Amino acid sequence: MRTWMLCLMLLLPLGTMAAQNSPNNSTTPTYTDDGKLAFPATYREWIFLSSGVDMSYSPNAMPGHSMFDNVFVNPEAYKAFLETGTWPDKTMLVLEARGAATSGSINKAGHFQNSDVMGREVHVKDEARFPGKWAFFGFDDNPTAKMVPKEASCYSCHESHAAVDTTFVQFYPTLLDIAMQKGTLSAAYRKDEADSAAQAKKKK
Amino acid sequence: MRTWMLCLMLLLPLGTMAAQNSPNNSTTPTYTDDGKLAFPATYREWIFLSSGVDMSYSPNAMPGHSMFDNVFVNPEAYKAFLETGTWPDKTMLVLEARGAATSGSINKAGHFQNSDVMGREVHVKDEARFPGKWAFFGFDDNPTAKMVPKEASCYSCHESHAAVDTTFVQFYPTLLDIAMQKGTLSAAYRKDEADSAAQAKKKK
Repeated sequence: MRTWMLCLMLLLPLGTMAAQNSPNNSTTPTYTDDGKLAFPATYREWIFLSSGVDMSYSPNAMPGHSMFDNVFVNPEAYKAFLETGTWPDKTMLVLEARGAATSGSINKAGHFQNSDVMGREVHVKDEARFPGKWAFFGFDDNPTAKMVPKEASCYSCHESHAAVDTTFVQFYPTLLDIAMQKGTLSAAYRKDEADSAAQAKKKK
Repeated sequence: MRTWMLCLMLLLPLGTMAAQNSPNNSTTPTYTDDGKLAFPATYREWIFLSSGVDMSYSPNAMPGHSMFDNVFVNPEAYKAFLETGTWPDKTMLVLEARGAATSGSINKAGHFQNSDVMGREVHVKDEARFPGKWAFFGFDDNPTAKMVPKEASCYSCHESHAAVDTTFVQFYPTLLDIAMQKGTLSAAYRKDEADSAAQAKKKK
C-alpha cells in the first residue's frame, strides 16, 4: 500500500467548491477553488477496510521503522460496493500510515499502533473531474493537497495490479469475496493470479 | 489483546430479549432468553479503534502463525467517549482475530490481513446486568455465546492494567489522547506508567 505515493504538483481549476477553513466533515470529495482536495477530517469514523504492517511491493524492501497502514472508505461507497462489487462515483479511500510499537503498557511482543501518524493519502473517484476517473492526493498535516501527477508510478501500478477498478481490493478481505461473487475482478488481477498459479505449479 | 480469552460457561437468566434467528443488526447488547449474547453481525460497520499484530502480554510468547487483532466499538459509545473520555452503559467492543499473510498478489514483505477469521470476542458494558458492569463473550462461528466466567484471567488483567474503565485504551491511539485530556485514566494504569518510568530511570 505504500506505493500510494506522495508527489505534489498539478492543479485542476475546474468547477469547484471552496473548502472551508473549518475542518471538512464531508464524506464526498470537496475541492478548493484552485483544485486542491480538502482533507476529509472525519475519515476515522468511516468504514475500516483493513490494516497491513510493513507491506512492500519490492522484494528488496529495507527493514526500517515498523509502520501500520489503515485503510478507510466513505460509508456511501462501502454500501454501494456491497451491492455491486465495485466503487461508485465519488468514492474516497483514505490510507493512514501509523507508527508501530512493541513496548508499551503490559505489551511484550508483536506490534500495536501508536499516536505517530506518518502520512495520509486519499484515492478519489471523480469521473467528471479526472481523465482516468481516479486521482491520488498526499497529505501531511495540511488541510488541502494538490493532485499527485498522473505520471507517478502509483497510477500505473494500480492500473496493472489492482483487483477492482484500480483499487487493491485483494488486501481488503471482506470485500474480495464480494468482488468474486459479483464478477468484478479486473482482467489485470486475474492475469496476475493465473501467472502466480502457473509459477507455483512449475516449481512442484 | 489476546488475553480476551475464550472460556464458555455461566448463564444469566435475567430479564432478556430473545435473539432472532436472523442476523442481529443491533448496535446495543441483545440477549437470548437463556442469557447468551447475540453476536453483533454488523460490527465491521462500527467504528474502528485499532489493529495489532502478534501482540502478547507474556515475554515468553511463542511465535506461531502471525495474526492481526482488529477492535471495533459501537458508534453510540464512540461518540460518548469523544465527549466524556469514558464508556457509557451498553458499550460493546468487538475484537476480531484475523490471519496475517505475506505472499499474495504483488506483496513481498510485511503482513496483510486475509480472509481467515480466527475468533471474535465481545466486551460488553451492561451495568444492571453484570456485577462488575462489564462481561466478556467468546464467539467462534456461533450466533450466540455464554458469558466468560468472572474467574477468568481476562477480567483481573483488565481490572489491573487497562487505561480506562477496564478497557485497553492505551492501545487505541485516537482515544488515549482524549482520556488524558478528560482525566479519565485509571489509577491502575497510571501506577503501571509510573512504575515503568521509575524502572527506566533506574537503568540509566
